[in-house]
Amino acid sequence: MTQLLDLDEVGGRVERTELPGGLRVLTETMPGVLSATLGIWVDVGSRDETPAVAGSSHFLEHLLFKGTTTRSALEIATAMDAVGGEMNAFTAKEHTCFYANVLASDLPLAVGLLADLVTDATNTAADLESERTVVLEEIAMRDDEPADAVHDLFSETLFGDTPLGRSVLGTVASIEGLTRDDVDGWYRQRYAMPRMVVTAAGRVDHQQVLDLVTAAFGDRLNGDGGPAPLRLGEQGATSPARSTGLIARRTEQTHLLLGTPGLGRLDERRYAAAVLDAAVGGGMSSRLFQEIREKRGLVYSVGSALTHYAGAGAFSVYAGCSKKRVPEVLRLIRAGLDGVAADGLTDEEVARARGQLKGGMVLGLEDTGSRMSRLGKSELSYGEYLPVREVLARLDAVDEQQVREVATELFGRPTCLAVVGPYRESDLDRL
Amino acid sequence: MTQLLDLDEVGGRVERTELPGGLRVLTETMPGVLSATLGIWVDVGSRDETPAVAGSSHFLEHLLFKGTTTRSALEIATAMDAVGGEMNAFTAKEHTCFYANVLASDLPLAVGLLADLVTDATNTAADLESERTVVLEEIAMRDDEPADAVHDLFSETLFGDTPLGRSVLGTVASIEGLTRDDVDGWYRQRYAMPRMVVTAAGRVDHQQVLDLVTAAFGDRLNGDGGPAPLRLGEQGATSPARSTGLIARRTEQTHLLLGTPGLGRLDERRYAAAVLDAAVGGGMSSRLFQEIREKRGLVYSVGSALTHYAGAGAFSVYAGCSKKRVPEVLRLIRAGLDGVAADGLTDEEVARARGQLKGGMVLGLEDTGSRMSRLGKSELSYGEYLPVREVLARLDAVDEQQVREVATELFGRPTCLAVVGPYRESDLDRL
Repeated sequence: MTQLLDLDEVGGRVERTELPGGLRVLTETMPGVLSATLGIWVDVGSRDETPAVAGSSHFLEHLLFKGTTTRSALEIATAMDAVGGEMNAFTAKEHTCFYANVLASDLPLAVGLLADLVTDATNTAADLESERTVVLEEIAMRDDEPADAVHDLFSETLFGDTPLGRSVLGTVASIEGLTRDDVDGWYRQRYAMPRMVVTAAGRVDHQQVLDLVTAAFGDRLNGDGGPAPLRLGEQGATSPARSTGLIARRTEQTHLLLGTPGLGRLDERRYAAAVLDAAVGGGMSSRLFQEIREKRGLVYSVGSALTHYAGAGAFSVYAGCSKKRVPEVLRLIRAGLDGVAADGLTDEEVARARGQLKGGMVLGLEDTGSRMSRLGKSELSYGEYLPVREVLARLDAVDEQQVREVATELFGRPTCLAVVGPYRESDLDRL
Repeated sequence: MTQLLDLDEVGGRVERTELPGGLRVLTETMPGVLSATLGIWVDVGSRDETPAVAGSSHFLEHLLFKGTTTRSALEIATAMDAVGGEMNAFTAKEHTCFYANVLASDLPLAVGLLADLVTDATNTAADLESERTVVLEEIAMRDDEPADAVHDLFSETLFGDTPLGRSVLGTVASIEGLTRDDVDGWYRQRYAMPRMVVTAAGRVDHQQVLDLVTAAFGDRLNGDGGPAPLRLGEQGATSPARSTGLIARRTEQTHLLLGTPGLGRLDERRYAAAVLDAAVGGGMSSRLFQEIREKRGLVYSVGSALTHYAGAGAFSVYAGCSKKRVPEVLRLIRAGLDGVAADGLTDEEVARARGQLKGGMVLGLEDTGSRMSRLGKSELSYGEYLPVREVLARLDAVDEQQVREVATELFGRPTCLAVVGPYRESDLDRL
């Protein structure tokens, strides 16, 4: 079994400071690395949008790279490429993150650059028009990749016409309708220091990061960020909004997600759910992989996943296979979930899943990016930082009984099915 | 600019031993990490296959995970999942690699497991039948992802009906036709110690790895591996086999690759070509990204790539966009390449591209997997290990004149165009 005796060697020192203005800064010093990964997190995502402006948060994330009052898009890109750093950003349902991975000696450059585009973007009308087609092309790209499209379709099927049900990208109609006032207004309102967190991991010094961040932010973004998101008060439904969703397309494979409403992010049962997920569909030794791929050779990909949001979540199983194999694959997935709900897992399976999660977590700690990300999510989404040892201890405390209880709860809920493939709506009832 | 003063801190110690039987073992000891990544490399890939058995190397890579004389597929998967390690494999045109990333204390387990499946696989007829559908599903998945499909189509267009032109996956017909004798025979012939390399990077000790490998391999795979691949003697053509390739499909975006024959892996101009590639289409500040995405917003993705094989290679530009934008995007790509061929790059662009490549290379060194991979490719493909300092020095030595020469050579060659999108063959002549 995995030995964690040397954990102190990779366990960095985490420090947290709230600066005047409300900006929070968290750093983690990792021994033995040359690089640093910096993240600027904003507590805004597609979950905060109304349908008319769906996709604003993601559009804005693009737009900030187009220029500030002192730097053009080319100058932004040139500064980072010249030092071989990697700079990018992503928008999720509940947050937006701008990040850069650089050699430690280039950290001042990275802080100056990312802070500039986050605090001082111009968001001109001309840039907005140019970037509108880029975002529309990104939507088209998603539509062309059935394994991507089925994930957005699943959210829509499970969460229905709610913010969580809508794609981060928005729709063609909402993107075509966005005005400069919509997007820039979203920026002026939401990008405010109390809503933001800066995280850095690697060869970093907390005080140096504080000094760099203080200088780079100045007194910009001094607003309050508007009304706080109501997410924490939301309670997820235990039934899907719809039972099926279909994107009819003449693909070679049918791409499907079968799932149920899951647990909210702060639900104490999430550790037991993680063990359940790993044992059911999380690795090559999992029940679904063994039954569906190894024993019967019906698919190339099959696996399960947990998604957590504030007060809501999902458990889902993905599979991709030829249409003729879909009925048997679905039968096996359902039988697998029913079996676990009825009889639980063996102690050996629980122990193995715990080992898998713990080992994977420790291996992930060697990467400055995953540590930076862990700090950001802890602060923004969980409101507390759990040391690695504590997470490992909580996983160790999961037993077969807890896993069975969460399996009975989750797999007893009504399921929904999202399908991208050569079907008609009327076909889905028979699946 | 990137400072590399601290390089010694991440530069590990590389050791190489050739064991009796011809098996080569290379290790790199990295300070400050808890994990190790192990790779077992075999000098066999799709380039060694005849059309009738196309896909044998990749099929075999799958089959080895199905069981050995002492372990079932479930036992193989269970052993790795229990310690949270990540185990997988990939097949390329010129090699096959089995690898595992584990905590250092689990390295003995990883060596024992990977060596077992590589040296003692049973390859039963029943397992072959089961895995045949898995590989066919993998081909269907590739076909459903236009960005993947266009890459295989480009190889076919550029290299034509030669081993390099064929997909690693094989074709539906070749996979349906493979017999147990074909695949197991390929294994018995090609998997032999003189054709194989074991590499490990991270918290590893060279002597320990030698002892583990010696015990795990025993005297199995004592053959000579059959005739050596003739690749090194091949000379790549300077014209594409065909000028266009099309997969007609009703996609939202047209996915295209425009490219030319490139340089062989040992060509001394490869460092200048890497600088050229970075400046033309390698990052956000590159000419193509700036012209096509930033200034005009015509695409979400555009970028260039170099591929090197023994004695042959490719330079290509990928773009994905709506059909109506394709003529302008292609015009801009061609104008961009022509401009560099005629006028070269500015000294500033060359300096920035050098910095980008050097910084990216040093940042990549923090990952045990990329070091393991670097060792394997050095030994199998290049026949020598170049220290990081030496590669950085060669990049530093690239000047504007060298870049201009290689641009004139490569961009002066006839191009070919591979397209996945809503077109007919007759449309392509007009692109």
